Amino acid sequence: MVKAEILYGVHPVIEALKAGRRKVFEIYVTKGRPSRRMETVRQLAESKNIPLQTVSASRLADLSKTDMHQGVGAGVSAFPFASIHEMLDRPGPVNQRHLLLILDQLVDPRNLGALIRTALCVGVNGIIIPKNRSALPNPLVSKASSGALEHALVAKVTNLVQSIQGLKTMGIWIAGMDTAARQSIYASDFSSDHAIIIGGEEKGLRPLVKKQCDYLISIPQNRTVSSLNASVAGGIIMYEVFRQRGRAL
Amino acid sequence: MVKAEILYGVHPVIEALKAGRRKVFEIYVTKGRPSRRMETVRQLAESKNIPLQTVSASRLADLSKTDMHQGVGAGVSAFPFASIHEMLDRPGPVNQRHLLLILDQLVDPRNLGALIRTALCVGVNGIIIPKNRSALPNPLVSKASSGALEHALVAKVTNLVQSIQGLKTMGIWIAGMDTAARQSIYASDFSSDHAIIIGGEEKGLRPLVKKQCDYLISIPQNRTVSSLNASVAGGIIMYEVFRQRGRAL
Repeated sequence: MVKAEILYGVHPVIEALKAGRRKVFEIYVTKGRPSRRMETVRQLAESKNIPLQTVSASRLADLSKTDMHQGVGAGVSAFPFASIHEMLDRPGPVNQRHLLLILDQLVDPRNLGALIRTALCVGVNGIIIPKNRSALPNPLVSKASSGALEHALVAKVTNLVQSIQGLKTMGIWIAGMDTAARQSIYASDFSSDHAIIIGGEEKGLRPLVKKQCDYLISIPQNRTVSSLNASVAGGIIMYEVFRQRGRAL
Repeated sequence: MVKAEILYGVHPVIEALKAGRRKVFEIYVTKGRPSRRMETVRQLAESKNIPLQTVSASRLADLSKTDMHQGVGAGVSAFPFASIHEMLDRPGPVNQRHLLLILDQLVDPRNLGALIRTALCVGVNGIIIPKNRSALPNPLVSKASSGALEHALVAKVTNLVQSIQGLKTMGIWIAGMDTAARQSIYASDFSSDHAIIIGGEEKGLRPLVKKQCDYLISIPQNRTVSSLNASVAGGIIMYEVFRQRGRAL
Protein backbone atom coordinates (compact mmCIF):
# COMPACT_ATOMS: atom_id res chain seq x y z
CA MET A 1 0.00 0.00 0.00
CA VAL A 2 1.32 3.43 -0.89
CA LYS A 3 0.66 6.76 0.70
CA ALA A 4 -2.20 8.23 -1.29
CA GLU A 5 -3.56 11.19 0.62
CA ILE A 6 -3.46 13.24 3.79
CA LEU A 7 -6.43 12.89 6.10
CA TYR A 8 -6.99 15.89 8.37
CA GLY A 9 -9.08 16.72 11.38
CA VAL A 10 -9.35 14.99 14.72
CA HIS A 11 -12.22 12.61 13.90
CA PRO A 12 -10.94 11.36 10.51
CA VAL A 13 -7.49 10.61 11.94
CA ILE A 14 -8.80 8.91 15.09
CA GLU A 15 -11.37 6.85 13.19
CA ALA A 16 -8.86 5.82 10.52
CA LEU A 17 -6.61 4.57 13.33
CA LYS A 18 -9.45 2.78 15.10
CA ALA A 19 -10.89 1.22 11.94
CA GLY A 20 -7.46 -0.08 10.92
CA ARG A 21 -8.46 -0.45 7.28
CA ARG A 22 -6.00 2.04 5.81
CA LYS A 23 -2.28 1.91 6.33
CA VAL A 24 -1.31 5.01 8.31
CA PHE A 25 2.26 5.97 7.33
CA GLU A 26 2.73 8.93 9.63
CA ILE A 27 0.83 11.35 11.78
CA TYR A 28 1.33 15.10 11.91
CA VAL A 29 0.41 17.20 14.89
CA THR A 30 0.90 20.87 15.55
CA LYS A 31 2.13 22.35 18.78
CA GLY A 32 -0.74 23.55 20.86
CA ARG A 33 -2.61 23.23 24.08
CA PRO A 34 -2.79 19.59 25.13
CA SER A 35 -6.30 18.21 24.74
CA ARG A 36 -7.96 14.88 25.45
CA ARG A 37 -8.48 14.26 21.76
CA MET A 38 -4.87 14.99 20.89
CA GLU A 39 -3.88 12.62 23.67
CA THR A 40 -6.08 9.95 22.05
CA VAL A 41 -4.27 10.51 18.74
CA ARG A 42 -0.87 10.22 20.41
CA GLN A 43 -1.79 7.06 22.26
CA LEU A 44 -3.25 5.38 19.19
CA ALA A 45 -0.16 6.32 17.17
CA GLU A 46 2.14 4.93 19.82
CA SER A 47 0.22 1.68 20.25
CA LYS A 48 0.40 1.12 16.50
CA ASN A 49 4.04 2.21 16.14
CA ILE A 50 3.21 5.00 13.74
CA PRO A 51 5.76 7.83 13.50
CA LEU A 52 4.43 11.10 14.85
CA GLN A 53 5.85 14.39 13.58
CA THR A 54 5.32 17.78 15.14
CA VAL A 55 4.90 20.37 12.41
CA SER A 56 3.84 24.02 12.20
CA ALA A 57 0.20 24.84 11.53
CA SER A 58 1.13 26.35 8.18
CA ARG A 59 3.14 23.27 7.20
CA LEU A 60 0.13 21.09 8.03
CA ALA A 61 -2.08 23.48 6.03
CA ASP A 62 0.29 22.95 3.07
CA LEU A 63 0.24 19.19 3.47
CA SER A 64 -3.53 18.93 3.88
CA LYS A 65 -4.32 21.81 1.50
CA THR A 66 -6.73 23.33 4.02
CA ASP A 67 -6.79 25.41 7.18
CA MET A 68 -9.46 23.17 8.66
CA HIS A 69 -6.98 20.56 9.90
CA GLN A 70 -7.60 21.14 13.63
CA GLY A 71 -3.90 20.54 14.27
CA VAL A 72 -3.77 16.93 13.15
CA GLY A 73 -3.20 15.05 9.90
CA ALA A 74 -2.21 11.60 8.73
CA GLY A 75 -0.55 10.26 5.59
CA VAL A 76 -2.64 7.23 4.65
CA SER A 77 -3.19 4.69 1.90
CA ALA A 78 -6.12 5.10 -0.48
CA PHE A 79 -9.68 4.66 0.71
CA PRO A 80 -10.52 0.95 0.67
CA PHE A 81 -13.57 0.56 -1.53
CA ALA A 82 -15.80 -2.42 -0.88
CA SER A 83 -17.72 -4.61 -3.32
CA ILE A 84 -21.50 -4.91 -3.33
CA HIS A 85 -20.97 -8.61 -2.66
CA GLU A 86 -19.16 -7.79 0.59
CA MET A 87 -22.04 -5.55 1.66
CA LEU A 88 -24.61 -8.29 1.19
CA ASP A 89 -22.49 -11.08 2.59
CA ARG A 90 -24.04 -10.75 6.02
CA PRO A 91 -27.55 -10.36 7.43
CA GLY A 92 -28.94 -6.89 6.93
CA PRO A 93 -27.94 -4.80 9.92
CA VAL A 94 -31.35 -3.19 10.37
CA ASN A 95 -33.58 -5.93 11.74
CA GLN A 96 -31.82 -8.56 9.62
CA ARG A 97 -33.08 -6.92 6.45
CA HIS A 98 -30.82 -5.34 3.89
CA LEU A 99 -30.71 -1.58 3.47
CA LEU A 100 -28.45 -0.04 0.88
CA LEU A 101 -27.98 3.59 -0.04
CA ILE A 102 -27.35 4.44 -3.70
CA LEU A 103 -26.22 7.95 -4.61
CA ASP A 104 -26.82 8.90 -8.22
CA GLN A 105 -24.31 11.61 -9.13
CA LEU A 106 -24.35 13.48 -5.87
CA VAL A 107 -21.63 16.10 -6.33
CA ASP A 108 -21.14 17.92 -3.03
CA PRO A 109 -18.49 16.21 -0.85
CA ARG A 110 -20.09 17.68 2.29
CA ASN A 111 -23.41 16.05 1.41
CA LEU A 112 -21.62 12.77 0.71
CA GLY A 113 -19.88 12.97 4.08
CA ALA A 114 -23.10 13.75 5.96
CA LEU A 115 -24.94 10.89 4.21
CA ILE A 116 -22.20 8.40 5.05
CA ARG A 117 -22.28 9.60 8.66
CA THR A 118 -26.04 9.03 8.88
CA ALA A 119 -25.78 5.71 7.04
CA LEU A 120 -23.33 4.50 9.66
CA CYS A 121 -25.65 5.60 12.50
CA VAL A 122 -28.58 3.76 10.93
CA GLY A 123 -26.37 0.80 10.11
CA VAL A 124 -26.92 0.42 6.36
CA ASN A 125 -25.15 -2.45 4.59
CA GLY A 126 -23.27 0.02 2.44
CA ILE A 127 -23.29 2.93 0.04
CA ILE A 128 -23.06 2.57 -3.74
CA ILE A 129 -21.69 5.43 -5.85
CA PRO A 130 -21.17 5.63 -9.62
CA LYS A 131 -17.58 6.28 -10.65
CA ASN A 132 -18.33 9.29 -12.85
CA ARG A 133 -19.67 12.77 -12.09
CA SER A 134 -19.98 11.99 -8.40
CA ALA A 135 -18.32 13.15 -5.24
CA LEU A 136 -16.07 10.27 -4.17
CA PRO A 137 -14.39 9.54 -0.83
CA ASN A 138 -11.53 11.95 -0.14
CA PRO A 139 -10.16 13.74 2.93
CA LEU A 140 -12.88 16.41 2.84
CA VAL A 141 -15.56 13.70 2.72
CA SER A 142 -13.95 11.96 5.68
CA LYS A 143 -13.97 15.29 7.56
CA ALA A 144 -17.59 16.03 6.64
CA SER A 145 -18.52 12.50 7.78
CA SER A 146 -16.81 13.17 11.12
CA GLY A 147 -14.63 10.14 10.39
CA ALA A 148 -17.58 7.81 9.70
CA LEU A 149 -16.18 7.21 6.20
CA GLU A 150 -13.28 5.28 7.75
CA HIS A 151 -15.72 2.59 8.92
CA ALA A 152 -18.26 2.61 6.08
CA LEU A 153 -18.56 0.13 3.23
CA VAL A 154 -18.59 2.16 0.02
CA ALA A 155 -18.68 0.61 -3.47
CA LYS A 156 -17.67 2.58 -6.57
CA VAL A 157 -19.35 1.16 -9.65
CA THR A 158 -18.83 1.72 -13.37
CA ASN A 159 -22.36 1.07 -14.49
CA LEU A 160 -24.96 1.99 -11.90
CA VAL A 161 -27.88 0.65 -13.93
CA GLN A 162 -26.24 -2.78 -14.12
CA SER A 163 -25.54 -2.73 -10.39
CA ILE A 164 -29.18 -1.90 -9.68
CA GLN A 165 -30.31 -4.73 -11.96
CA GLY A 166 -28.04 -7.06 -10.03
CA LEU A 167 -29.65 -6.01 -6.74
CA LYS A 168 -33.10 -6.62 -8.23
CA THR A 169 -32.21 -10.19 -9.19
CA MET A 170 -31.35 -10.71 -5.52
CA GLY A 171 -34.88 -9.67 -4.55
CA ILE A 172 -33.93 -6.25 -3.21
CA TRP A 173 -36.57 -3.56 -3.72
CA ILE A 174 -35.37 -0.37 -5.40
CA ALA A 175 -37.01 2.83 -4.16
CA GLY A 176 -36.07 6.12 -5.80
CA MET A 177 -36.39 9.47 -4.05
CA ASP A 178 -38.12 11.89 -6.40
CA THR A 179 -39.62 15.18 -5.24
CA ALA A 180 -42.37 14.78 -7.87
CA ALA A 181 -43.44 11.33 -6.63
CA ARG A 182 -46.98 11.13 -5.23
CA GLN A 183 -46.19 8.31 -2.84
CA SER A 184 -45.05 9.52 0.57
CA ILE A 185 -42.20 7.76 2.36
CA TYR A 186 -44.68 7.45 5.26
CA ALA A 187 -47.14 5.50 3.09
CA SER A 188 -44.43 3.06 1.99
CA ASP A 189 -43.53 -0.30 3.48
CA PHE A 190 -39.80 -0.77 3.95
CA SER A 191 -39.97 -4.02 5.90
CA SER A 192 -38.36 -6.07 3.12
CA ASP A 193 -34.83 -5.71 1.71
CA HIS A 194 -34.42 -2.29 0.12
CA ALA A 195 -32.01 -0.05 -1.70
CA ILE A 196 -32.86 3.66 -1.58
CA ILE A 197 -31.61 5.87 -4.40
CA ILE A 198 -30.94 9.57 -3.85
CA GLY A 199 -30.26 11.76 -6.86
CA GLY A 200 -27.86 14.64 -7.44
CA GLU A 201 -28.39 17.99 -5.70
CA GLU A 202 -29.66 19.90 -8.70
CA LYS A 203 -30.90 17.32 -11.16
CA GLY A 204 -32.29 14.50 -9.02
CA LEU A 205 -32.36 10.98 -10.43
CA ARG A 206 -31.21 10.47 -13.99
CA PRO A 207 -34.06 9.15 -16.22
CA LEU A 208 -32.23 5.90 -16.91
CA VAL A 209 -31.81 5.31 -13.17
CA LYS A 210 -35.39 6.32 -12.42
CA LYS A 211 -36.58 3.69 -14.93
CA GLN A 212 -34.91 0.98 -12.84
CA CYS A 213 -36.82 1.87 -9.68
CA ASP A 214 -39.59 -0.42 -8.46
CA TYR A 215 -41.29 2.68 -7.12
CA LEU A 216 -40.69 6.37 -6.50
CA ILE A 217 -41.23 8.13 -3.18
CA SER A 218 -41.09 11.65 -1.83
CA ILE A 219 -40.85 13.39 1.51
CA PRO A 220 -44.04 15.39 2.02
CA GLN A 221 -43.77 19.12 2.66
CA ASN A 222 -46.03 21.57 4.36
CA ARG A 223 -44.75 24.45 2.28
CA THR A 224 -43.34 24.02 -1.18
CA VAL A 225 -41.41 27.27 -1.34
CA SER A 226 -38.33 25.33 -0.38
CA SER A 227 -36.88 21.85 -0.90
CA LEU A 228 -34.76 19.66 1.34
CA ASN A 229 -30.99 19.45 1.23
CA ALA A 230 -29.86 16.07 -0.17
CA SER A 231 -28.12 15.00 3.04
CA VAL A 232 -31.13 15.94 5.17
CA ALA A 233 -33.54 14.17 2.81
CA GLY A 234 -31.29 11.11 2.95
CA GLY A 235 -31.30 11.22 6.75
CA ILE A 236 -35.10 11.43 6.89
CA ILE A 237 -35.66 8.47 4.56
CA MET A 238 -32.98 6.28 6.19
CA TYR A 239 -34.49 6.94 9.60
CA GLU A 240 -38.01 6.22 8.35
CA VAL A 241 -36.81 2.76 7.26
CA PHE A 242 -35.13 2.34 10.64
CA ARG A 243 -38.30 3.39 12.49
CA GLN A 244 -40.54 1.06 10.46
CA ARG A 245 -38.28 -1.90 11.05
CA GLY A 246 -38.96 -1.51 14.70
CA ARG A 247 -35.41 -1.09 15.92
CA ALA A 248 -36.05 2.49 16.70
CA LEU A 249 -38.11 2.39 19.88
CA MET B 1 -33.44 50.77 5.22
CA VAL B 2 -29.78 50.83 4.30
CA LYS B 3 -27.75 48.42 2.24
CA ALA B 4 -26.29 46.01 4.74
CA GLU B 5 -24.90 43.06 2.81
CA ILE B 6 -24.52 41.32 -0.52
CA LEU B 7 -26.55 38.19 -1.02
CA TYR B 8 -25.12 35.82 -3.62
CA GLY B 9 -26.25 32.74 -5.46
CA VAL B 10 -29.30 32.16 -7.63
CA HIS B 11 -31.66 30.91 -4.92
CA PRO B 12 -30.94 33.56 -2.25
CA VAL B 13 -31.39 36.39 -4.76
CA ILE B 14 -34.57 34.96 -6.31
CA GLU B 15 -36.12 34.16 -2.92
CA ALA B 16 -35.22 37.57 -1.48
CA LEU B 17 -36.99 39.15 -4.45
CA LYS B 18 -40.01 36.85 -4.12
CA ALA B 19 -40.30 37.22 -0.34
CA GLY B 20 -40.16 41.01 -0.61
CA ARG B 21 -39.08 41.42 3.00
CA ARG B 22 -35.69 42.99 2.38
CA LYS B 23 -35.13 46.08 0.34
CA VAL B 24 -33.11 45.08 -2.73
CA PHE B 25 -30.99 48.06 -3.79
CA GLU B 26 -29.34 46.58 -6.85
CA ILE B 27 -28.67 43.30 -8.56
CA TYR B 28 -25.37 42.21 -10.04
CA VAL B 29 -25.12 39.65 -12.80
CA THR B 30 -22.12 38.39 -14.71
CA LYS B 31 -22.00 37.86 -18.43
CA GLY B 32 -22.58 34.25 -19.29
CA ARG B 33 -24.75 31.78 -21.03
CA PRO B 34 -28.40 32.76 -20.73
CA SER B 35 -30.26 30.41 -18.41
CA ARG B 36 -33.84 30.10 -17.23
CA ARG B 37 -32.85 31.04 -13.70
CA MET B 38 -30.97 34.13 -14.83
CA GLU B 39 -34.02 35.08 -16.86
CA THR B 40 -36.11 34.75 -13.68
CA VAL B 41 -33.72 37.09 -11.86
CA ARG B 42 -33.90 39.64 -14.70
CA GLN B 43 -37.69 39.54 -14.88
CA LEU B 44 -38.11 39.90 -11.11
CA ALA B 45 -35.65 42.81 -11.07
CA GLU B 46 -37.47 44.53 -13.91
CA SER B 47 -40.94 44.06 -12.42
CA LYS B 48 -39.70 45.59 -9.17
CA ASN B 49 -37.72 48.40 -10.81
CA ILE B 50 -34.45 47.30 -9.30
CA PRO B 51 -31.29 48.43 -11.11
CA LEU B 52 -29.38 45.55 -12.68
CA GLN B 53 -25.64 45.86 -13.25
CA THR B 54 -23.54 43.57 -15.39
CA VAL B 55 -20.18 43.01 -13.69
CA SER B 56 -17.21 40.71 -14.18
CA ALA B 57 -17.08 37.44 -12.25
CA SER B 58 -14.06 38.68 -10.31
CA ARG B 59 -15.81 41.95 -9.42
CA LEU B 60 -18.77 39.97 -8.09
CA ALA B 61 -16.34 37.73 -6.18
CA ASP B 62 -14.91 40.91 -4.60
CA LEU B 63 -18.35 42.25 -3.72
CA SER B 64 -19.66 38.97 -2.31
CA LYS B 65 -16.32 37.87 -0.84
CA THR B 66 -16.69 34.41 -2.37
CA ASP B 67 -16.34 32.56 -5.65
CA MET B 68 -19.57 30.69 -5.01
CA HIS B 69 -21.77 33.47 -6.36
CA GLN B 70 -23.10 31.56 -9.39
CA GLY B 71 -23.01 34.77 -11.38
CA VAL B 72 -25.58 36.70 -9.39
CA GLY B 73 -25.61 38.93 -6.32
CA ALA B 74 -27.84 41.54 -4.71
CA GLY B 75 -27.20 44.47 -2.40
CA VAL B 76 -29.88 44.17 0.26
CA SER B 77 -31.00 45.57 3.60
CA ALA B 78 -30.28 43.62 6.78
CA PHE B 79 -32.04 40.35 7.50
CA PRO B 80 -35.43 41.14 9.06
CA PHE B 81 -35.51 39.34 12.38
CA ALA B 82 -38.92 38.39 13.77
CA SER B 83 -40.19 38.38 17.35
CA ILE B 84 -41.35 35.24 19.13
CA HIS B 85 -44.72 36.96 19.47
CA GLU B 86 -45.02 37.19 15.68
CA MET B 87 -44.25 33.49 15.36
CA LEU B 88 -47.02 32.49 17.74
CA ASP B 89 -49.55 35.01 16.48
CA ARG B 90 -51.15 32.49 14.13
CA PRO B 91 -52.31 28.88 14.38
CA GLY B 92 -49.40 26.46 14.37
CA PRO B 93 -48.68 25.54 10.77
CA VAL B 94 -48.33 21.83 11.42
CA ASN B 95 -51.85 20.59 12.11
CA GLN B 96 -52.77 23.80 13.96
CA ARG B 97 -50.24 23.01 16.67
CA HIS B 98 -47.18 25.12 17.32
CA LEU B 99 -43.74 23.86 16.46
CA LEU B 100 -40.69 25.99 17.16
CA LEU B 101 -37.05 25.22 16.61
CA ILE B 102 -34.53 26.56 19.14
CA LEU B 103 -30.82 26.42 18.32
CA ASP B 104 -28.54 26.62 21.33
CA GLN B 105 -25.20 27.98 20.12
CA LEU B 106 -25.03 26.19 16.83
CA VAL B 107 -21.92 27.63 15.20
CA ASP B 108 -21.70 26.30 11.64
CA PRO B 109 -23.50 28.60 9.18
CA ARG B 110 -24.01 25.66 6.79
CA ASN B 111 -25.84 23.73 9.50
CA LEU B 112 -27.93 26.80 10.32
CA GLY B 113 -28.83 27.18 6.65
CA ALA B 114 -29.77 23.51 6.26
CA LEU B 115 -31.90 23.61 9.43
CA ILE B 116 -33.76 26.71 8.28
CA ARG B 117 -34.34 25.05 4.91
CA THR B 118 -35.85 21.96 6.57
CA ALA B 119 -37.84 24.10 9.02
CA LEU B 120 -39.47 25.87 6.10
CA CYS B 121 -40.34 22.55 4.41
CA VAL B 122 -41.93 21.25 7.60
CA GLY B 123 -43.59 24.59 8.23
CA VAL B 124 -42.38 25.45 11.73
CA ASN B 125 -43.62 28.67 13.32
CA GLY B 126 -40.09 29.97 13.55
CA ILE B 127 -36.51 29.51 14.66
CA ILE B 128 -35.08 31.02 17.84
CA ILE B 129 -31.35 31.72 18.13
CA PRO B 130 -29.38 33.24 21.00
CA LYS B 131 -27.50 36.39 20.07
CA ASN B 132 -24.11 35.22 21.31
CA ARG B 133 -21.76 32.45 20.20
CA SER B 134 -24.14 31.35 17.47
CA ALA B 135 -24.15 31.35 13.72
CA LEU B 136 -26.58 34.11 12.71
CA PRO B 137 -28.28 34.82 9.39
CA ASN B 138 -25.82 36.11 6.78
CA PRO B 139 -25.33 35.62 3.04
CA LEU B 140 -23.61 32.22 3.51
CA VAL B 141 -26.55 31.03 5.64
CA SER B 142 -28.99 32.20 2.97
CA LYS B 143 -26.96 30.29 0.38
CA ALA B 144 -26.78 27.14 2.53
CA SER B 145 -30.55 27.41 3.07
CA SER B 146 -31.06 27.58 -0.71
CA GLY B 147 -32.82 30.89 -0.12
CA ALA B 148 -35.24 29.50 2.49
CA LEU B 149 -33.86 32.03 4.99
CA GLU B 150 -35.51 34.81 2.99
CA HIS B 151 -38.96 33.43 3.92
CA ALA B 152 -38.27 32.11 7.44
CA LEU B 153 -39.21 33.73 10.73
CA VAL B 154 -36.04 33.89 12.83
CA ALA B 155 -35.84 35.50 16.28
CA LYS B 156 -32.52 36.55 17.82
CA VAL B 157 -32.78 36.61 21.61
CA THR B 158 -30.51 37.98 24.32
CA ASN B 159 -31.43 35.55 27.05
CA LEU B 160 -32.40 32.14 25.74
CA VAL B 161 -33.37 30.77 29.16
CA GLN B 162 -35.86 33.63 29.64
CA SER B 163 -37.29 33.07 26.18
CA ILE B 164 -37.77 29.37 26.95
CA GLN B 165 -39.47 30.22 30.24
CA GLY B 166 -41.80 32.52 28.31
CA LEU B 167 -42.74 29.70 25.95
CA LYS B 168 -43.43 27.42 28.91
CA THR B 169 -45.88 29.91 30.44
CA MET B 170 -47.75 29.73 27.13
CA GLY B 171 -48.15 25.97 27.55
CA ILE B 172 -45.55 25.01 24.96
CA TRP B 173 -43.64 21.80 25.73
CA ILE B 174 -39.86 22.09 25.62
CA ALA B 175 -38.04 19.01 24.31
CA GLY B 176 -34.25 19.02 24.27
CA MET B 177 -32.22 16.86 21.89
CA ASP B 178 -29.51 15.12 23.88
CA THR B 179 -27.53 12.15 22.56
CA ALA B 180 -27.38 10.76 26.11
CA ALA B 181 -31.17 10.82 26.62
CA ARG B 182 -32.82 7.43 27.08
CA GLN B 183 -36.13 8.49 25.60
CA SER B 184 -36.32 7.94 21.85
CA ILE B 185 -37.94 10.54 19.61
CA TYR B 186 -40.09 7.62 18.37
CA ALA B 187 -41.41 6.95 21.88
CA SER B 188 -42.39 10.61 22.38
CA ASP B 189 -45.73 12.27 21.76
CA PHE B 190 -45.44 15.54 19.84
CA SER B 191 -49.14 16.09 19.27
CA SER B 192 -49.30 19.17 21.53
CA ASP B 193 -47.50 22.49 21.05
CA HIS B 194 -43.74 21.97 21.15
CA ALA B 195 -40.41 23.72 20.93
CA ILE B 196 -37.48 21.47 20.05
CA ILE B 197 -34.01 22.53 21.17
CA ILE B 198 -30.91 21.45 19.28
CA GLY B 199 -27.51 22.10 20.82
CA GLY B 200 -24.20 23.19 19.34
CA GLU B 201 -22.22 20.85 17.09
CA GLU B 202 -19.53 19.92 19.58
CA LYS B 203 -20.96 20.66 23.01
CA GLY B 204 -24.68 19.91 22.69
CA LEU B 205 -27.10 21.69 25.00
CA ARG B 206 -25.70 23.99 27.66
CA PRO B 207 -26.51 22.75 31.19
CA LEU B 208 -28.58 25.83 31.99
CA VAL B 209 -30.64 25.29 28.82
CA LYS B 210 -30.96 21.56 29.46
CA LYS B 211 -32.41 22.35 32.90
CA GLN B 212 -35.27 24.24 31.26
CA CYS B 213 -36.36 21.26 29.18
CA ASP B 214 -39.55 19.40 30.08
CA TYR B 215 -37.88 16.28 28.74
CA LEU B 216 -34.84 15.13 26.81
CA ILE B 217 -34.93 12.95 23.72
CA SER B 218 -32.46 11.24 21.43
CA ILE B 219 -32.39 9.71 17.99
CA PRO B 220 -31.66 6.00 18.37
CA GLN B 221 -28.67 4.54 16.56
CA ASN B 222 -27.85 1.09 15.37
CA ARG B 223 -24.14 1.67 15.64
CA THR B 224 -22.65 4.13 18.04
CA VAL B 225 -19.28 4.55 16.35
CA SER B 226 -20.64 7.72 14.78
CA SER B 227 -23.07 10.50 15.64
CA LEU B 228 -25.43 12.52 13.50
CA ASN B 229 -24.66 15.88 11.97
CA ALA B 230 -26.67 18.65 13.70
CA SER B 231 -28.62 19.58 10.57
CA VAL B 232 -29.47 15.94 9.81
CA ALA B 233 -30.53 15.31 13.42
CA GLY B 234 -32.71 18.43 13.25
CA GLY B 235 -34.28 17.21 10.02
CA ILE B 236 -35.08 13.81 11.53
CA ILE B 237 -36.74 15.23 14.64
CA MET B 238 -38.71 17.92 12.77
CA TYR B 239 -40.01 15.28 10.36
CA GLU B 240 -40.92 12.93 13.20
CA VAL B 241 -43.14 15.68 14.65
CA PHE B 242 -44.61 16.27 11.20
CA ARG B 243 -45.26 12.54 10.72
CA GLN B 244 -46.92 12.15 14.12
CA ARG B 245 -49.18 15.10 13.53
CA GLY B 246 -50.63 13.22 10.62
CA ARG B 247 -49.95 15.74 7.92
CA ALA B 248 -47.35 13.55 6.43
CA LEU B 249 -49.36 10.81 4.72
